[in-house]
Amino acid sequence: MATVNRITILALGLIGGSLAKALKENGFAGEVVAWGRRDVSLKRGVELGIIDRYSLDLAQAVDGADIVVIATPTLIAEDMLRQLLQSVPTKVIITDVASVKGNLLAAAIDCCGEVPPNLVLGHPIAGSEKSGVEAARSDLFINHRVILTPEPETDRDGVALVRAMWESTRADVVEMPVAEHDRVLAATSHLPHILAYTLVDALAGQKEQQDIFRFAAGGFRDFTRIASSDPTMWQEIALANSPALLKVIDLFSDQLGLLRGAIESADSAQIMASFERAKTARDHFAQLLEKQSEASISSE
Amino acid sequence: MATVNRITILALGLIGGSLAKALKENGFAGEVVAWGRRDVSLKRGVELGIIDRYSLDLAQAVDGADIVVIATPTLIAEDMLRQLLQSVPTKVIITDVASVKGNLLAAAIDCCGEVPPNLVLGHPIAGSEKSGVEAARSDLFINHRVILTPEPETDRDGVALVRAMWESTRADVVEMPVAEHDRVLAATSHLPHILAYTLVDALAGQKEQQDIFRFAAGGFRDFTRIASSDPTMWQEIALANSPALLKVIDLFSDQLGLLRGAIESADSAQIMASFERAKTARDHFAQLLEKQSEASISSE
Repeated sequence: MATVNRITILALGLIGGSLAKALKENGFAGEVVAWGRRDVSLKRGVELGIIDRYSLDLAQAVDGADIVVIATPTLIAEDMLRQLLQSVPTKVIITDVASVKGNLLAAAIDCCGEVPPNLVLGHPIAGSEKSGVEAARSDLFINHRVILTPEPETDRDGVALVRAMWESTRADVVEMPVAEHDRVLAATSHLPHILAYTLVDALAGQKEQQDIFRFAAGGFRDFTRIASSDPTMWQEIALANSPALLKVIDLFSDQLGLLRGAIESADSAQIMASFERAKTARDHFAQLLEKQSEASISSE
Repeated sequence: MATVNRITILALGLIGGSLAKALKENGFAGEVVAWGRRDVSLKRGVELGIIDRYSLDLAQAVDGADIVVIATPTLIAEDMLRQLLQSVPTKVIITDVASVKGNLLAAAIDCCGEVPPNLVLGHPIAGSEKSGVEAARSDLFINHRVILTPEPETDRDGVALVRAMWESTRADVVEMPVAEHDRVLAATSHLPHILAYTLVDALAGQKEQQDIFRFAAGGFRDFTRIASSDPTMWQEIALANSPALLKVIDLFSDQLGLLRGAIESADSAQIMASFERAKTARDHFAQLLEKQSEASISSE
């Protein structure tokens, strides 16, 4: 017996497809419906047995759904959210999977004049180097964190339902305020991407770039791996989370400036103190990170 | 029949120990002798069959050696080099394994008044997360690059001999000027370490650090792995290579400043251009990097 009758997923990429597949397999939803702009991946979703059916018409796709999951790219998510808030009954729970929450909450308040009680913003910290519905895996969320960011006005039954949906995929669900989510993700995910892109772009512009990359070794490979991430997706995330991201860029730049000064003045004690604090912190959390990573290929 | 009668290695850590072990196994040297400040690792080296014998007395250890390899930490290497240049006959080839070459060349010129022809500076781009003689592996250098940085005044027979020594360990030997070596390593190894240490140190100082690390995922783990490197070693490298390192820190900071400006002004075209250039460069060299990495655990 399914927990909910119908779940509609907007856009069938890696995350939407993996969620659909997991929900089909575990029987959480009686029916899994998808919406998208083009029918290629949607047709493929039906063929792969990931969804029951689809519609290119949004109103038709969400009709009768208990939960609508916005799984489109970050910037489009804002438009989708506005459309849904203006069209679906307030008993329908709306949730999402975007990497930034503040811009969506702001859009919702702008749209409704208040926090819509049926909106439960969420973010599964999972991903893969692959993309698209073909890469969908029902085990993508196992042991991965899903962060829900309910407001005081949010309907607690709605939160419980979205939590149950993610727990059915064996994800580890936690709650935190929107602003905290955006700060934490800016620090641990968005800033590292910015730094990796910046480093590779800076070096690629050097005339010795052939040699630079030829003699790069294991440390460089690991450090710059995230610079191979999808530029469109990360440009959208950078803009959606710009307030938190700018703050943490400045924090980083100040710290780098201090270290630069210590190197220039050959202040070995200051350099050592910084490196030792960093090593202690990195080692302290290494075990935790390694544990998380066992189930994870890559996860932003 | 050995190629040389005797090789003396100064300090028996991971690199010195691995080189000794490889040279013992492949028979390149008739005798492998080690010197160190304390006899613990040296005794262990004899027990492990990595060296034939050792001495705590430098003059005794290098007596009769055809090649002396300085394998001490970066800053001590400068002192060792001065001592050797003032004491060993000029027919003895002196080489090293340090991560920075400019400071050693400057010390040699300062010491001798000219470039000593018997000095062949070198840098094996190999390493491991482990350290010490117990971690020594004779296969550590297989398919790894060794960069030699001879000057015009350097004895070509000496260069050929050092090249033959490394080739006997199945390393891939290349030559480049000292300044180019230091620029390339500053860009691909020293700067990434600085950035990783800086990021972790900056985040560890935040009051939300528990959450920050708790929700960090695969990308963060890879990005910050090198912040677990030995602080003493990296503080020494940062100071030894400070001229090249400061330049590349400034290059990076300027680029980060441009990107920060683009994010602040929501200039999505500029952000996209930077991310796309970076992704293209990273993808272009990814295959090369992956190929290098197959034989490598970690290599700075």
